[in-house]
Amino acid sequence: MHSISYYQEKMSHHFSEIVANKEPKNLYEPIEYILSLGGKRMRPVLTLMATEVFNVDCEKAIPAATAVEVFHNFSLIHDDIMDDAPLRRGKPTVHEKWNINTGILSGDAMLILAYQYFENYKPEIFQKLAKLFSKTALEVCEGQQYDVDFETRTDVTISDYLKMIEYKTAVLLGAAMKMGAIVAETSEENGNLIYDFGLNLGIAFQLQDDYLDAFGNPETFGKQVGGDIIENKKTYLFLKAMEFANANDKQQLSHLFSIQLTDNAEKIEATKKIFVESGASEATKKAIANYTLKAFETLEKMAIDDEKKAILKAFGENLMGRNV
Amino acid sequence: MHSISYYQEKMSHHFSEIVANKEPKNLYEPIEYILSLGGKRMRPVLTLMATEVFNVDCEKAIPAATAVEVFHNFSLIHDDIMDDAPLRRGKPTVHEKWNINTGILSGDAMLILAYQYFENYKPEIFQKLAKLFSKTALEVCEGQQYDVDFETRTDVTISDYLKMIEYKTAVLLGAAMKMGAIVAETSEENGNLIYDFGLNLGIAFQLQDDYLDAFGNPETFGKQVGGDIIENKKTYLFLKAMEFANANDKQQLSHLFSIQLTDNAEKIEATKKIFVESGASEATKKAIANYTLKAFETLEKMAIDDEKKAILKAFGENLMGRNV
Repeated sequence: MHSISYYQEKMSHHFSEIVANKEPKNLYEPIEYILSLGGKRMRPVLTLMATEVFNVDCEKAIPAATAVEVFHNFSLIHDDIMDDAPLRRGKPTVHEKWNINTGILSGDAMLILAYQYFENYKPEIFQKLAKLFSKTALEVCEGQQYDVDFETRTDVTISDYLKMIEYKTAVLLGAAMKMGAIVAETSEENGNLIYDFGLNLGIAFQLQDDYLDAFGNPETFGKQVGGDIIENKKTYLFLKAMEFANANDKQQLSHLFSIQLTDNAEKIEATKKIFVESGASEATKKAIANYTLKAFETLEKMAIDDEKKAILKAFGENLMGRNV
Repeated sequence: MHSISYYQEKMSHHFSEIVANKEPKNLYEPIEYILSLGGKRMRPVLTLMATEVFNVDCEKAIPAATAVEVFHNFSLIHDDIMDDAPLRRGKPTVHEKWNINTGILSGDAMLILAYQYFENYKPEIFQKLAKLFSKTALEVCEGQQYDVDFETRTDVTISDYLKMIEYKTAVLLGAAMKMGAIVAETSEENGNLIYDFGLNLGIAFQLQDDYLDAFGNPETFGKQVGGDIIENKKTYLFLKAMEFANANDKQQLSHLFSIQLTDNAEKIEATKKIFVESGASEATKKAIANYTLKAFETLEKMAIDDEKKAILKAFGENLMGRNV
């Protein structure tokens, strides 16, 4: 087993070569561009790490890991169009730098390119990888659609929300890890367990992202603190507050989440106060801890060395940024 | 072997069930909608027909044929967004009936759904189908990008144009037929030959479409005659005219193709006159005949019964609407 930075380093070389010098330029340059923007490469790192957990050289998993990262970047291009986002990783989004049509078509090409990476494997492995990938990719689309639908729905439940973040974010982390298990040709059982590990850690991670969006340290969070509140996003915090708050606070929260302001400082403060006093922030912390624990419990069931379990657990703790 | 209408009938049942009752509705209803608009289902029919050419029951090819048609409709949704097209088969396009974001996301889901149909086959067949599909799908994206690029380029050559229509239209016809060969598990040689048959017939078909767009019978053509001229499209007719015409006509044609008019009758007449007098229309007819002949010649090389060859030839002649 190696360090996260070793796996990141392993992957970094591959993204610059993927579509280098391919024609037509207007199709492939946006792909080169988005892949050059970097990021933590968390998903492909998970694939490489999972492969080594099952005692196979991570080199064998590089094509599958590349597929996962190419797919993730496809979804970023199309999501950024749908969200009308001007920036991605501090740089102009593809549809801003080029145009919407280019974003659509280059994204389409990336989805297809992702599948092509599985062609590096023999037929049985290829089919297992492509099947898992298709199922996951479709769930990611469904998650994105639920997220869009939630913007205008007023009857979103906690369970609706959990399903949305599971599909939109967590399944890809589970699938990235299971691909490592498939490449390593370990047991079906181990593959399913590491999928559940990634899935639950992914849900915990997304809930923590919701929590930090309101209560994070502005200097370390990386995004604008209060962004979800400004955009009236129905996150776990909001939904729990609507469940727990007294009638008065509930009405105030409903009102706060129906307006768009130019100065949001007061709105953010008032909302956070309700999140805390209603017990929603405490409930969110508890949910994060529960999903993290659930992830760690699946580790225990896996037929791997204790040393490997410890490494996966350390990764999870590192990701969650705290010792649970 | 059966008739075209038999194969069309075979397919027609499948499209209504594909995403029936799947959630979220806003993702799957547009898919149901576009698949319900009908059309000749030429591509899946080619897959079924090719399977029976190699003596295997076409029932076995239905999943592959469905994948091809689902992919084709994915490309229609995304192309219609890019072309800002209001109508498809006389009905509102997906992005008109819903919105652009829905068109993007439902299209993405269809591309993934197409791959899932190959999961009905055993690993070796699955891998062959998915590999051919990915290669073809990427070429279709490249063809679409070339087509977009040509709108603003002034240096498009005949060979650029032929490559564009090959990628945008013809490769999918070749691939649809080769998928039938793969499902039938015939020789690699037969698979490649039937691919070439479909490919060349596809190029001939597209060139004929260009020709009929200018010289077709308004009562039977189905689209507005002169549409390409109105939109200043650099078709085979235009490029050949720019190659053959005298300096005077060339200048006039350049001018005609740089303007947008409200009444186009005169522009269409003047352009058609140059197409005929320069010999461009004759050259286009010759190219159509050549590609059709090339398709029929590959038939001769195939290791199949003469009766089967005759059926494929009859299909080609029927498609080209004339006895060459």
